[in-house]
Formats: sequence, structure tokens, C-alpha cells
Amino acid sequence: MSKEVKSESVSLCPLGTAAAPEQEPLCIFGTGDFGRSLGQRLLQSGYKVVYGSRRPHSCDPLPQGAQVMSHAAAAQSASVVILCIHREHYDFLETLAPQLKGKVLVDVSNNLKKNVYPEANAEYLHKLIPGAHVVKALNTLSAWVLQNGPSDASRQVYLCGNNVVAKQTVAEMATKLGFTVLDRGSLTAARELEDFPLQLFPEWRLPLRLAISLSAFFFIYVVITDVVYAYVKNGKDISFRIMVSLANKVFPIVSLIMLSLCYLPGVIAAFLQLYRGTKYRRFPDWLDRWMLCRKQLGLIALGFASLHVLYTLIIPIRYYVRFRLAANTISQIKENRTSEFDTDVAWRSDSYLSMGILGFGFYVVLGITSLPSVSNALSWREFSFIQSKLGYVTLFFCTFHTYLYGWNRFLFPSSYKWYTPSAYMLCLVVPSVVIVLKLLLLLPCVDHRLVRIRQGWERTDPEEDSNKSLLK
Amino acid sequence: MSKEVKSESVSLCPLGTAAAPEQEPLCIFGTGDFGRSLGQRLLQSGYKVVYGSRRPHSCDPLPQGAQVMSHAAAAQSASVVILCIHREHYDFLETLAPQLKGKVLVDVSNNLKKNVYPEANAEYLHKLIPGAHVVKALNTLSAWVLQNGPSDASRQVYLCGNNVVAKQTVAEMATKLGFTVLDRGSLTAARELEDFPLQLFPEWRLPLRLAISLSAFFFIYVVITDVVYAYVKNGKDISFRIMVSLANKVFPIVSLIMLSLCYLPGVIAAFLQLYRGTKYRRFPDWLDRWMLCRKQLGLIALGFASLHVLYTLIIPIRYYVRFRLAANTISQIKENRTSEFDTDVAWRSDSYLSMGILGFGFYVVLGITSLPSVSNALSWREFSFIQSKLGYVTLFFCTFHTYLYGWNRFLFPSSYKWYTPSAYMLCLVVPSVVIVLKLLLLLPCVDHRLVRIRQGWERTDPEEDSNKSLLK
Amino acid sequence: MSKEVKSESVSLCPLGTAAAPEQEPLCIFGTGDFGRSLGQRLLQSGYKVVYGSRRPHSCDPLPQGAQVMSHAAAAQSASVVILCIHREHYDFLETLAPQLKGKVLVDVSNNLKKNVYPEANAEYLHKLIPGAHVVKALNTLSAWVLQNGPSDASRQVYLCGNNVVAKQTVAEMATKLGFTVLDRGSLTAARELEDFPLQLFPEWRLPLRLAISLSAFFFIYVVITDVVYAYVKNGKDISFRIMVSLANKVFPIVSLIMLSLCYLPGVIAAFLQLYRGTKYRRFPDWLDRWMLCRKQLGLIALGFASLHVLYTLIIPIRYYVRFRLAANTISQIKENRTSEFDTDVAWRSDSYLSMGILGFGFYVVLGITSLPSVSNALSWREFSFIQSKLGYVTLFFCTFHTYLYGWNRFLFPSSYKWYTPSAYMLCLVVPSVVIVLKLLLLLPCVDHRLVRIRQGWERTDPEEDSNKSLLK
Repeated sequence: MSKEVKSESVSLCPLGTAAAPEQEPLCIFGTGDFGRSLGQRLLQSGYKVVYGSRRPHSCDPLPQGAQVMSHAAAAQSASVVILCIHREHYDFLETLAPQLKGKVLVDVSNNLKKNVYPEANAEYLHKLIPGAHVVKALNTLSAWVLQNGPSDASRQVYLCGNNVVAKQTVAEMATKLGFTVLDRGSLTAARELEDFPLQLFPEWRLPLRLAISLSAFFFIYVVITDVVYAYVKNGKDISFRIMVSLANKVFPIVSLIMLSLCYLPGVIAAFLQLYRGTKYRRFPDWLDRWMLCRKQLGLIALGFASLHVLYTLIIPIRYYVRFRLAANTISQIKENRTSEFDTDVAWRSDSYLSMGILGFGFYVVLGITSLPSVSNALSWREFSFIQSKLGYVTLFFCTFHTYLYGWNRFLFPSSYKWYTPSAYMLCLVVPSVVIVLKLLLLLPCVDHRLVRIRQGWERTDPEEDSNKSLLK
Repeated sequence: MSKEVKSESVSLCPLGTAAAPEQEPLCIFGTGDFGRSLGQRLLQSGYKVVYGSRRPHSCDPLPQGAQVMSHAAAAQSASVVILCIHREHYDFLETLAPQLKGKVLVDVSNNLKKNVYPEANAEYLHKLIPGAHVVKALNTLSAWVLQNGPSDASRQVYLCGNNVVAKQTVAEMATKLGFTVLDRGSLTAARELEDFPLQLFPEWRLPLRLAISLSAFFFIYVVITDVVYAYVKNGKDISFRIMVSLANKVFPIVSLIMLSLCYLPGVIAAFLQLYRGTKYRRFPDWLDRWMLCRKQLGLIALGFASLHVLYTLIIPIRYYVRFRLAANTISQIKENRTSEFDTDVAWRSDSYLSMGILGFGFYVVLGITSLPSVSNALSWREFSFIQSKLGYVTLFFCTFHTYLYGWNRFLFPSSYKWYTPSAYMLCLVVPSVVIVLKLLLLLPCVDHRLVRIRQGWERTDPEEDSNKSLLK
Repeated sequence: MSKEVKSESVSLCPLGTAAAPEQEPLCIFGTGDFGRSLGQRLLQSGYKVVYGSRRPHSCDPLPQGAQVMSHAAAAQSASVVILCIHREHYDFLETLAPQLKGKVLVDVSNNLKKNVYPEANAEYLHKLIPGAHVVKALNTLSAWVLQNGPSDASRQVYLCGNNVVAKQTVAEMATKLGFTVLDRGSLTAARELEDFPLQLFPEWRLPLRLAISLSAFFFIYVVITDVVYAYVKNGKDISFRIMVSLANKVFPIVSLIMLSLCYLPGVIAAFLQLYRGTKYRRFPDWLDRWMLCRKQLGLIALGFASLHVLYTLIIPIRYYVRFRLAANTISQIKENRTSEFDTDVAWRSDSYLSMGILGFGFYVVLGITSLPSVSNALSWREFSFIQSKLGYVTLFFCTFHTYLYGWNRFLFPSSYKWYTPSAYMLCLVVPSVVIVLKLLLLLPCVDHRLVRIRQGWERTDPEEDSNKSLLK
């Protein structure tokens, strides 16, 4: 910083002199959306920009202040050439090899699919013009981000290349445009960078597949024990229940299982650390992968819980429900029987609803705090407080809600159609296990040992733990 | 970067020597909220700060570490003077012209209204002190942002001015405070910069006006065909239906129309590109403007959809609904007629509700991904997947939901009061058109042609498409 | 900037020469999570990294490209040593005092609790190795943030230390890693920095305590006037109403009071400014603190309002409600009495529901705009438009909703059980006062005076207001 401060006072000296120092332009090949947006952004950041074009006198509208020349002339005038053209059109560059020699060639191209070509675009370019210094950069940006300025996650750009000085030149340019640069090493990383923009929710795949499998399983399960059973045993067609009643059984079941699967790996990891007596051994791969997709598991579970809420709230509007209520009233009158008000049932039904609402409320808070802008505003301690403490409270409320729903139904033989348990019983297994294990971990003696292990203490090797590194 | 790295090792040499290099202070005129917050921020970033004040010995509490002097002395001591005072008070600066000569004058002022003065504040300042180098900057920031540090969108600051070196000095200062600087050119841009903080949702105006017009139209339409019709034909006063029943007709209608208006311009653009055989000709202005407000259209539509959900869910609590249900039951008993349970009606009513819930669920996901922090965390491909694929799924579900609501009612003459169609039929026109056009675009032959055009292929000019630029 | 531009052209000259300038490594002590993540991030940003370890040949997997040496050798090779170890293990550093002399020692450590040690970790380190330049920095970051890159709020890092040049060195490093650096002064600020990551929602405490107290008070109040009263007077046990009916009285009451408490301090501040005739005198401390927690007050109120919505929507599913509705119908039939449809009641009940929904809708919009990423995308004028104008509209709708709920019940003696007013009457006091005061402030004469005061005009001191500073 000292230098920057000095430079400031220095730059004030020539303040009286009219013009800024003569500045070398940047050259852009390609006048498409991306080329134009990049040029405009560079101009706004104080660069001179020269476009190279095949028809310099009849090309599309370019940003004000930019020059247009033939490819050869444009390349000659600058030491950095940014290629905003498709890989399919790279061949014409070979003819410009003399003009491009020793220049920094920035490859911003992407492909439409993975693995179409044997080598990365940037590597192909490097082969074509071996005399130039190829840098792969900026390819994760869209024309839109360039026009509107970097923000949040789109602030990070990656680059790679074989020449360090060339990379530094490009990094300085990107920094001036307002981006944060991450160097990914040599040009062999280009393939990885080119695959970035093509990825489609990689971390959501496993949780989504799990959600779909669970939904399919439980849907078939309840169709069999509800609709098919009623048809086979009583000859009644209640298939209309599929659209709302059965959906509203599957959604909460899958939601609760997935919520508990969020917390299961943490519990397993804790027991593993207790068993091993150290935190310095890596977890098995499957556990690592599981722990990395906990956020996605939780958010999908929240989505299912929200659907459950909506499906529950529309119950009284349904034709079937209104019909049944009216039919009940009518039959009561006709048979002249009066049902007594049962305070126990009122307590139970109200508690069941109340637990559900509170559990859902906490759940939504969990969801909101996992929004990037909210979670980033939290300190580490606040984030872990919400995601673990509040998470277990949510899990407890939702599990309790399900137990109250079941109440003593597990005692009645009618719940076991064809000798299978009801779906809601099946879904209580995982959350109950997680809650029991968590309670074990909260026992003072276990908790104390775990905290020590997480602070770096090791059971097996007491001699060497003096300079153990920092927990964070 | 190489230089910065070097500088690092250099700056380590004098590490043993006690003090940092003597540093020139920055001068701030004005000790209001903004002046104080700016000074504090500058001090935190390692600058020296001198305040200029009329009463240097009796002014408000200033940030710790700042000096206070008379205006003249303060201006003398620094080469950059930041004016945190109102334009109305600029005149006293004329008396300081000698001290301000050759200095960088930073104008951070804003006005309370647009077009109050004939020229921008910064231009006025330039006229007052022609010997100084006026830079307009930082005026889009609030005292609050300065106190709490830049974040997200408030990270970008704009500047303009006639002297390049002066602008660079100010840009360096802003960069050190953690902002990203965008140079808007010469001082003539000052007016535009001063109008920035006065703008009030410019991109929301068109969609909001549309939403209000549509709501008004459909509200009047349903009042006439419902309330007025019932009064004129049957002499019944059902005006109480306005508050909930009619509102709950207008909201979903406007929501569905606006959702489909989100996707209509994209479809029109695709057909225009197919017709023209190129993507290199600009769209008409109205289409460009339409496409720029799609996000706002969609979010307002989501708001209306949410209101529709709430208005629907409270239906069973309404006095009118409870009364009618009881009246129905009573009349059934009195007339000793039993209504049969109709499985078809159950299927239809449940499907109708289910489609609505799922459509709304997808809609909310669309809404969440349009939050700045979420959309920025998505790759370009993920964002377009959600906003187009998922968007069409949402549109399809919601349109289907409306068709199921109507069912075969369009066959009954009673739906056509005063020979006009029901409101829900009117609202199905646009979404149906959009869906049909989209299905046409998905036909393999059409899709293939469109993809090629968007990759840069042109129908008319086969000779020159070899160096067509990059799609993004 | 001029210099940077120059440097660019300079750095291009040695482009032909093979390698980058020889670069001094950074040294990291400690190979835990944080040490490893920091090292990897430094390597990605182009630094060389050397780890110091007790057992350099048998330590955990380290980031690719990093060297491992003994502590002494590692310290010797670099001029910056980053200590990623626990304070408990600092003592061994004393033996390295000769190697560490004159080096920059970066202390990134945190404690597990506040006030465990008499002095801050960094001050302790300074005592241990007086010959080194200790800088406290980066301790607010987690290993996770280092691995995934800075984003949003986690972009700001704080540092403090006694040597300016040492701080600059560390600040440059942090800037290169993509962080924004805030200098907090000398090493005496270390304690404050170390307490940062330990804080747990400090700004939420007061609002949360208030919410809990209000909830407790009103819960007891309604239990007494509802459940206890019914038991004492009529001997009826309606305790089951606690779970849903009473909760659904407490939630909206607390929500409305807290919403109005959001807007009360602003109104008080305005009257204070009017009374004092200036905006340049500080508000009393309690008012300042109150105004700083308005956002939290509002968000908690929104949470309670959401619970109120959910509790209201499940009403028709409750066993008690269904039972009562059926019982009503049955008794109507048995007594052969027909209740007439009352249009007035229909209007009132529908208006009541409609106001509630619209109020809640505006409320949710307020909540969404207070998400960091959304509020940062708004201009200052837009933000204040939403938070004040829309806020008062919300408050008005919700208050009106409550008045419609009460209607003329305040006239009936039966509302005053044991001579106390109903809970909903109590909760209307604060919002009504706020609305009346706000209406007074909107009177043209009062408004005009207030605007002038906020622009810097002072009543008492007309002579000196010529160079009053800028409002923002």
C-alpha cells in the first residue's frame, strides 16, 4: 500500500499537464454480443479498444469510442488480443500467425456441449499459433454480466495459461473490470474451465435423485395400501384420492426423511471421530460427499414440506371433503345420534397442527438463512447456531408432529393393511434414530470428549499434540 | 502483478524503520452526515483526513483522528478536496479560488428533485472555480453505505470529469475504500450521475402500469357480469362478493396473463430471427424494451398469484361460504334428497387444485432464483435452464389449472352473461397462444434452424460467415 | 491508474523471457483445516507457500505446490509468517524468536469463548516475540470461505497492528485474495477483532426479548380471560383452545405491536427535531438504539404475522371447528329455525379477511426488500420509499384489519371479562397512536418545516447556516 500512496502523490504532479499518458489499446476479434459487451466494459474502465473485423467498414454497431480495423492491423496495434469468436472459426487465425507472434492471446470461448473436441479450445489455439501466449480467461462470464457489472458470485473469474507474465497482464485487466481473479495454473486446466459454464446443478443431482426415488417408492406404497387395497377388499374405486390425499401423504414423508438425512451424516461423523479418537483422519468418501450435499437435501425437503402445507390447507375446499362433511351431518340427523365433543381429541388434533406449523416456521427460517446473501451476512458462529441448533429443533418438531398424527393408530390392526405398516410409520425410523443418536452425543461426558477432539486433541499420540493446528 | 509482488518485498525493507511514509491528507468540506461518514471511512482505510469548517473550534463531533481547520487552511494542506456541502452553499467557494487552484475538487452532491437547475451541480462548480479539476463522484452512495462498507450492488460507484489524472486520483481513492469504479467520461455526464439517486424503480413502471390497467379492466368486467348482472336480472344484491370472490377472480387472471407476457417476447424474437435468417439485426425497440422488463412482469405476476393463493385458502373461513354450506345441508335434509358422490367431479376438482399448487410451487422457485444473490450463484446455463425450461413448465401448469377450472363450462349458455364470455376464458387467450407458438418452436426442424442462427449462422450471406463471433 | 496502465505495458516487455520474477514465499505455521485452506487460496492467487511443521516428513496432506520444512527453516525463508495454530500452542514460538525477528507475524487465531484470557491472543504473541511485527488479521474468515472464495459480507476482513508497513503487507495479501480490508488501528483493537466471530446476533437480542415478553404477557392475559374465566364462571374446560385459538390471538397481537414499534421511533425523532428546530443535535441514546433495531423488530413481527396466517388457514381443518359447524347445522334443523343471510356480516367478514391478506402481502414485500441482496440493489430513494411509504401502508392495513375484527364488540359488556378489555383492544393502542402522529406530521405546514430542518436549516442560529453540510 505504501507504494500506492506514493503513486497517488506522484500522479498529482502532472495534474496541470493536459493529457493522460499515451495508452496502448486492447484488441478484440469478433463483434458478437460478447465482443461488444466486453469492449464497452473495457472502454468504461478507461481502456482503448480496437476491434478486428473482416469487413471493418460494414460491421454491426460497436460501442462508441472503439476503433475498427482489419484483423492484421488490429493485431499489430496491440499486445493483447482477445478472441471473442467460436472455435469453429479459429482456422483463419493461422494466416495471422506473424502478427500474433509474442502477443497475449485471450481465449474466452466456450463449447455448447462437453467432450465434443479432443482438446480444449485454448489448447487447440495454442497449437495453431505456437508463437503467441495463450491465456484462457473470462469464459465463465456472460455478455449480460459484462454489461451490468460484476456482482456477487459472478465476480470471480478464472484463468489459466503457460506464461506467467501473460497471465498477470490478463489478471490486471480483469481486476480493473471489477472481477476477482483466481489462477488455475497452466493451460492444461483449460478443459476444466471450459466445462464450468456447461455444468447443470452438479451438487443437486444426488439429492434430487434421492428425492425422486423416495417419492416414487412411497407413492407406489400408498397407492397399493390405499387405492388397490380398497378396490380388492371392498370393491370401492377411490382412485381420485391420488391427486391430493395420496400426494399429501408422500410429500411430508419424503420431506421428513430428507430432513433427517441432512443431520444423519453429522451424527455419524461425530461417532466416527469419537471412535477414532482424532479429527485428523479423513472421513470415508461417501460420508464426505454426503456432507457436501446437506444444504441441497435440506432445501428439497423444505420444498416438499411447503407442498405438504399447501396440500393440507386446501383440504376444506375439496369437493370430496365437503361432500363427506355434509354426509356426516345428514347421517347424524337421520340416525338421530349425537356425537359428543371429545376434549382429548381436540387437544391432540390442535397440538398436531400446532407442532406442524411451528416446525414449518423454523424450517422456513432455516431456508431463508441459507440464501447466499443472508448466510454471508452471518458470522461463523451465528451460521452454525442456526444450521445446527435450529435445525435439530425443526427436526424435533416435525418428528413430534408425525408422532401426534399417528398417535395410537399403531396399536390397531386396521393400520396394517396386508400386514405392512402404514407409510407414516416407515418414515419415522430415520428421524427417530437421528434424534436418539444426537441425544447420546449431548450427554455431558460424550460431549466433553468430542469438543476436545475437535479442538485438536488426539487420543493415540499424546506426545505430539503440542503444536496442533487451529480449529475453525 | 509482477510489480505488485516486487513492491511487496520492497515494502518489507523499511520494516525496521519506525514510521510509514509521510502521507498527504485528503480534505473534506462539510461536516454533515455524509462528510462525517466519508471521513471515518477514509481514516479506516489509512488516509489522513482534514476537515474544512467555518467554525473549526465549535463544530459537531467528527471522526477520531481527523483534523479540523478553516476552509482556506484545509484546502491548502491537501491536493484533493471533497465537497460534502449542498449546491446552495457553493458560492462561498469563490472566495477560496486561489487556494483551490490546480486541486482536484470532488463533487458528491445530489439534488432533491430532477431538473431544478439549468446545469448539473458539478458543472456549476466547474464554472465557479475554473482553475480546479472538478470530478463528479460517489454521489450514489449514502452515509449508511459508507459507515457499513460497500456490499453487493452498492459496490459500484460512478465518476466523470474532464481531467484524466484527477479522475484517476479519485478512482484510486474509491478503489481503496472497497468500491468498483466505472468511468462515465467527461463532466457532461454529471447530470446523468446526479439523476441516478433520484430514480424510483424506472424498470418497474411499465409492468406496474400494465398490471394496474389489466386489474382495473378485469375488475370492472367481473363487477358487471357478476354483481350488476345479478342485480339487473334477479334483483339480488351480491355486492359483498367484491371484497373476496371478485378479487379472487381478478388476481389469478392478471397473474396468468402477465406470466404469459413474460414468455411472449422471447417467442416473438425467435420467430423474428427465423424470418430474418440472422441474429445480427436488432430487434424493434418495443420488443427490446419488453424483453428488458420480463423479470418485473414475472415478479408482479408472482405477487398476484400469491394473493390468489391466500384468497383461495381463506375461502372456507368466510361467513358466506359457511352459511351456504350449512344451507345446502339443511335443504338436502328438508327435501330428503341425497346427492350422490361423483367420482368424476372429485377427480376434476382434485386435479384442478393439484395443478394449481404445483404451478405455484414452480413459480415460487422461479421467484427465488431471481433474487440477486441466488441468480448470481448460478452458472449461465443453470440460470437459463430455470428461467426458460422451468418457466414454461410453470406456464403450462397454470394454464392447465385454468382449463380444468373452466372444464366444460364454455359449453353452457349461462356462462355467457349478456353474450360476453366469462373472464377466465378471456385470460386463457394469451397463454394458449404462447404455448402453441413455443410448441411450434420445439419442432425438430424449426429448433435446429434456430440453434444454428443463434450460433451465428446467417441465411443470406453464406460467404462471410467464417469469422462470426461467439454466442454467449 | 496511470501508473498501473504503464506497468501493464512494462510487464509486457519481458513477455518473451521465460519465467516470472523470483518470488518470496509466505510461511504458514499449522497444517489444520484453516492453515491448509489458506495455503491453497494463496497458491491459487499466485503466491509461493511454505509450511512450517514439527514433523515435516509425516504431516497431513497439504495443498499441491506447497513446500514443508521445519519451523525454523520455514520462518527463515519468508518475511511473513502466518500462525494458524491455537493460542495454547504459542509457547514453542519463543524458541524461534531469533528466526522470527523483524518478520511480520500474522495472528489469525480465535478463542472458543470471550474473556478467557487476560489479553488478546495477538497481544500475548507480541509479548512472546517482541522482535516481530504482529498483525491481527483474517480471523473472521472460516476455512470454508477461504476454500470457496469471498462473497458478499464475508468479503470484508479486518486487521490491526502497531507497524504500518507490516499492516500494509498483510493488507496487500488480503486484497489479492479478493478481500476488502478495513484497518482497525493498533494492536489494542485485537481484542475487539477476536470477539467478532464469537458474537451471536447482538442486534437481535433486544427485539427478541421484547417479542418474548410481549408474547408471555398476552398469553397469560388471554389464558386468564378465556380459559380461566370460562372455567370459573361456567365450569367449562376449554383448555384445549390454548394450542391453536389462543396462540392465534397472541401472534397477531404481538406482530401488530412490534410492527408499530418499528415506526414509532421515526415519529418520535421527527417531533424531537421539530421541537429542537435542528437536526444537528444527537438523539438520546435509547432512541438511537431503538432506531438501530427497527429492521429486526420488523422481521420478528413478520415472523409472527406469518404464524398468524398459518394458524388462521388451518382453522377449518380443526376437529373443534368441524364439530361446532356440524352441531350448529344440526341444532338449526332440530329447532327448525332458519338463520337469515346477513349481507352486512358478509361485507364485514370479507373486508376483514381482505385487509388482512393485503396487509400481509405488503408485509412480505417489505420483508423481501430487507434481504441484503435485494436492498443493496435498490437506490437510496427506492429503499426509503419501500421502507417508509410501504411500511406505513402495511401498518394501516393491519391496524384496519384489527379494527374490522373488533367491529362493534367494544360496545358489548360481554367483551370486558372481569372488567378488563379484550386483548385485541390493548394491542390497538400503539398502532393507533403511531398512525395519528404520522398523520400530524403529514400536515403540509408541519411537513414543510420538517423538510427544511432535514435539509440543514436551523431555527436558532440563522447567522451561521450558510455553509451547512449536505443531507444524504
